[in-house]
Amino acid sequence: MTTLAAAHADTGDTAWLLAATALVLLMTPGLALFYGGMVRTKSVLNMLMMSFVSIALVTVVWLAAGYSLAFGDDIGGGLIGGLKHVGMAGLGPDSVQGTVPTLLFATFQLTFAIITAALISGAVADRVKFAAWLVFVPVWALLVYVPVTHWVWGPGGWIAHRLGALDFAGGLPVEITSGASGLALCLVLGPRLGFKKDAMRPHNLPMVMLGAGLLWFGWFGFNAGSALGAGGLAAAAFLNTLAAGCTGLLGWLFVEQKRDGHPTTLGAASGAVAGLVAITPSCGSVSLLGALVVGLAAGVVCSYAVSWKFKLNYDDSLDVVGVHLVGGIIGTLLIGVFAEKAMTGSTEGLLYGGGLGQLGKQLVAVVVVAAYAFLVTYGIGKLIDKAMGFRASEDQEHRGLDLTVHAETAYDHGVLGHGAPVSSSVLSPAQKVKSQA
Amino acid sequence: MTTLAAAHADTGDTAWLLAATALVLLMTPGLALFYGGMVRTKSVLNMLMMSFVSIALVTVVWLAAGYSLAFGDDIGGGLIGGLKHVGMAGLGPDSVQGTVPTLLFATFQLTFAIITAALISGAVADRVKFAAWLVFVPVWALLVYVPVTHWVWGPGGWIAHRLGALDFAGGLPVEITSGASGLALCLVLGPRLGFKKDAMRPHNLPMVMLGAGLLWFGWFGFNAGSALGAGGLAAAAFLNTLAAGCTGLLGWLFVEQKRDGHPTTLGAASGAVAGLVAITPSCGSVSLLGALVVGLAAGVVCSYAVSWKFKLNYDDSLDVVGVHLVGGIIGTLLIGVFAEKAMTGSTEGLLYGGGLGQLGKQLVAVVVVAAYAFLVTYGIGKLIDKAMGFRASEDQEHRGLDLTVHAETAYDHGVLGHGAPVSSSVLSPAQKVKSQA
Amino acid sequence: MTTLAAAHADTGDTAWLLAATALVLLMTPGLALFYGGMVRTKSVLNMLMMSFVSIALVTVVWLAAGYSLAFGDDIGGGLIGGLKHVGMAGLGPDSVQGTVPTLLFATFQLTFAIITAALISGAVADRVKFAAWLVFVPVWALLVYVPVTHWVWGPGGWIAHRLGALDFAGGLPVEITSGASGLALCLVLGPRLGFKKDAMRPHNLPMVMLGAGLLWFGWFGFNAGSALGAGGLAAAAFLNTLAAGCTGLLGWLFVEQKRDGHPTTLGAASGAVAGLVAITPSCGSVSLLGALVVGLAAGVVCSYAVSWKFKLNYDDSLDVVGVHLVGGIIGTLLIGVFAEKAMTGSTEGLLYGGGLGQLGKQLVAVVVVAAYAFLVTYGIGKLIDKAMGFRASEDQEHRGLDLTVHAETAYDHGVLGHGAPVSSSVLSPAQKVKSQA
Repeated sequence: MTTLAAAHADTGDTAWLLAATALVLLMTPGLALFYGGMVRTKSVLNMLMMSFVSIALVTVVWLAAGYSLAFGDDIGGGLIGGLKHVGMAGLGPDSVQGTVPTLLFATFQLTFAIITAALISGAVADRVKFAAWLVFVPVWALLVYVPVTHWVWGPGGWIAHRLGALDFAGGLPVEITSGASGLALCLVLGPRLGFKKDAMRPHNLPMVMLGAGLLWFGWFGFNAGSALGAGGLAAAAFLNTLAAGCTGLLGWLFVEQKRDGHPTTLGAASGAVAGLVAITPSCGSVSLLGALVVGLAAGVVCSYAVSWKFKLNYDDSLDVVGVHLVGGIIGTLLIGVFAEKAMTGSTEGLLYGGGLGQLGKQLVAVVVVAAYAFLVTYGIGKLIDKAMGFRASEDQEHRGLDLTVHAETAYDHGVLGHGAPVSSSVLSPAQKVKSQA
Repeated sequence: MTTLAAAHADTGDTAWLLAATALVLLMTPGLALFYGGMVRTKSVLNMLMMSFVSIALVTVVWLAAGYSLAFGDDIGGGLIGGLKHVGMAGLGPDSVQGTVPTLLFATFQLTFAIITAALISGAVADRVKFAAWLVFVPVWALLVYVPVTHWVWGPGGWIAHRLGALDFAGGLPVEITSGASGLALCLVLGPRLGFKKDAMRPHNLPMVMLGAGLLWFGWFGFNAGSALGAGGLAAAAFLNTLAAGCTGLLGWLFVEQKRDGHPTTLGAASGAVAGLVAITPSCGSVSLLGALVVGLAAGVVCSYAVSWKFKLNYDDSLDVVGVHLVGGIIGTLLIGVFAEKAMTGSTEGLLYGGGLGQLGKQLVAVVVVAAYAFLVTYGIGKLIDKAMGFRASEDQEHRGLDLTVHAETAYDHGVLGHGAPVSSSVLSPAQKVKSQA
Repeated sequence: MTTLAAAHADTGDTAWLLAATALVLLMTPGLALFYGGMVRTKSVLNMLMMSFVSIALVTVVWLAAGYSLAFGDDIGGGLIGGLKHVGMAGLGPDSVQGTVPTLLFATFQLTFAIITAALISGAVADRVKFAAWLVFVPVWALLVYVPVTHWVWGPGGWIAHRLGALDFAGGLPVEITSGASGLALCLVLGPRLGFKKDAMRPHNLPMVMLGAGLLWFGWFGFNAGSALGAGGLAAAAFLNTLAAGCTGLLGWLFVEQKRDGHPTTLGAASGAVAGLVAITPSCGSVSLLGALVVGLAAGVVCSYAVSWKFKLNYDDSLDVVGVHLVGGIIGTLLIGVFAEKAMTGSTEGLLYGGGLGQLGKQLVAVVVVAAYAFLVTYGIGKLIDKAMGFRASEDQEHRGLDLTVHAETAYDHGVLGHGAPVSSSVLSPAQKVKSQA
């Protein structure tokens, strides 16, 4: 418990980034519950597992090479970083980046990569071969997440430094990338058995709301942490994040009430998330008015966007496309409208007299990132499908992945408080081993 | 990801207040689960919704006018602030208040307003017309929460500056206000169908404990964050908060064991919350001994207070009166006994030689705030009831608000791991739309 | 809401330690859910209660005497601290320790004592007499946790200052102590009825995963908070904590897949926890490579260690021995291999040229602490068993502790959304009182 002096790091900025990094890390378990509550009882655990293994797989890939490729010095053209920090070489507890320890900056950025990979699982719920997911995640992180991140936030990245598009906390690398990748992957896999025929209702809505609550909580670390310091910009990003989540929630519920006659909890959670998605790129550049509008626009538009899948026949099971791709696009574009100088230092959006220029830059960034993520993910998906199969068997899908892949069931109320006998018919092999041992 | 210099803000103080604000925001989802677990299965989602929409509604009201009225310069008499900061006008990322960004201070205060509104929902569980709640929350926030907050913490507010009563983290604006308002509202609405006849047991006690855990966690942000900086006072408030929660828990369980023969988990959770409620006003002014006594007193007294409703015939369904009003009064008054100079800088309570003066001031503040909140809330409630009806229909209440208002059910285990068919009889319209689309 | 100047405390370091302390406090409710999900439906609440009362009981003991005995000036020999700070005497909001308020340091340390006591409950799930637990926890905290903590972290403690073993965040006082004490206590109590015969499957695996997520989140406060400041060492400890949790998860799943043919969610959660346990002592001294290996080793070894109980016939119900004792030993020993100068300032492990010396010191510390905790806990357990009985009655265990001890059941879905009548047969006495009142 001795403290090494970290030369030049500011303790206050470091304190906030430590807390923010922990907050973002909680988002992935939060997402796991958010998604897990939305699926049917027979595949809850598989849904949770796809998120939890993403934490582990992306971390290993990031430490091995991802960080270096994303945030190492550009090797030319703003396309990718170099290999200088492979295996985190050259970085120790005394390394400092800006006003915080470099290892902390690298960890904060890692948490973004983790949740982006986990987000994709929502588009392909209930039907992924688990072994294929274990292959997909690290490959996808290296080929999709890492380059896009370099373009947007890496030293010399072309989107920030050549194009001049703005993205404060991840509309491009996180929201649009996960949404476009989710679309690609659900096209590769095809729809669930019974898509558009069976009711596939959330099995546990309080779990969904718990997940939404944890996500929102963690999102303050995500967005306000992206200021990389504890000052006025972090404060403004924090308030914008709260404001947009609120108007997103209200916008979605308003549409539901008008359209369906019922405001639902699933709508409230989805609307808040849509608002949060949209404010992610823009929280550090738009005015408070802008944040309120960004959130509202996302809540309203996404509440319609989630039904496109039924018309266009892609089974984006838990609405990654409808919420993250669409919401991410809204938020990234509206920077071109609502950016104000007090936040950005110089750039101004259309509304504040900045003309159409910034909007154009934002549009180019959106199109390129969405196309890149979609195409590369589609390619990865097809390759994995050819090599090992990407989809679970029909029998597994029918009986549920929990029992057939993980040899578990989410709930076992066989023994209540009354001494009723255990039903052992679904006893997992692992448990059988245990009880025979 | 550029950092604007926030002149004069201390990064360490700001770092703690950013984290504390996130913590307090987690309390409302925590409260939603705490309450949601306590109601019956048929109205869990409605309970969650009342909290979640409070986040959105109070935020909008606060940004529009609430912050300015509460914390703007006093317009005379210490009764209300001015309109200078309506729409957060004049406040940007560079604004500083004390040692933290003003936008962060405003957001931290907003989180208090949110949870106070949400707390009231516990008194009227299972029987509120949802549309009426959407009207009630913003009106109540403006007419009750905002003025009381100005009296206690606003510039020139009469309770702090004329009367001289102390309230560190919200015994008056949060606990007593929510408790007295809850009492008024459950009188307006009347008791649930079956009150005192049917058993209305918590449908999910682990959910209650999860909620209690999240509340306690967030409460450290609430109380220690109220120091508005990261120093010794925050540390002392933090420890007092932990200590009082602990003795509250022990006190309640002790009474239960003696009175009922069983220490219950609901009692443990309620006792901890009672202790936390009582230490909220006092955590920044009492000694550690004081904190232990405040918590214990609240745990013991509130464990009796929650049964008053059966004798006096008001259906304070989830014990907002018995815990928040009673606990808030205990904690606010005991400042007059246990305040010590090392904490307050000057004021001393009865025990430390300060005489009866401070106790008298605390009593005046308690009586005025409780009466104001009760009367104004009662008036708002009656007006809304006249205008649009405040209570759900008997049929809705009987069948549950989840299905009848939100077209959802909390749990759907119709499809287990065994391919059992979905019961579609309770399929929500929204889902029907989806599955037909 | 006035701020006292805390002379010499650094606001940034204090901000991080405030946040870290809150994070560690969330770990105990997280643990309660982690454990609660693993037991059968009939004793969930009892499991939760054992954790929640540990918070309260350990806090009271710590404030009364524990802090002073653990962190007060050594009374000679490095065995125990003095009584100078009994009742926290002499410590006020202005006291400073290092760069943080002393009250905050004391609270941070308290949170470690709390969770260590709560951990033990996992070894004796479903069969503890509740009154005996209430006696055990404070006695154990004083006689086991407090001395070991003084040896490792107290001023002049013999393990740190005479032996020279390293332990950054609690391999010895927390992991090995809880594991060895859990083993002692489950030997005192004997196995559950039906041990090795009945399937005793987790009743709610999503609850287990939620608990694991909260534990991991809080662990960043635990480990990175142990730097007692916001700098490079905290950052390195944070990243090591993430890395080891990830390789622990992957290691456990790998073994499961090979051995049982199924990677389980329970395995993922257990593997992550095993990695986190092992990195706890070592996160502040090993290299990143070391962290990855420490986590992997723990994941693999613990995945086997949890089955020893079936061969050796001790009912370590929720694997406190297999995960915390074994993982704690692995992590504490491997400091002797992977310690690097950049982290420790001077000490180097075997791999970095430091020879076998440090490994030997670590081994001595492990053996002494494990033996001490085992023997003293066994003695306390036997004494309590003689004095009042430590085990619940056979009838209580059969019918479940929730109903028989706490007069509650965890779940009550008797009233669904369809107006089905309440089954009152399991109505708790407290509820009967309420509904008759």
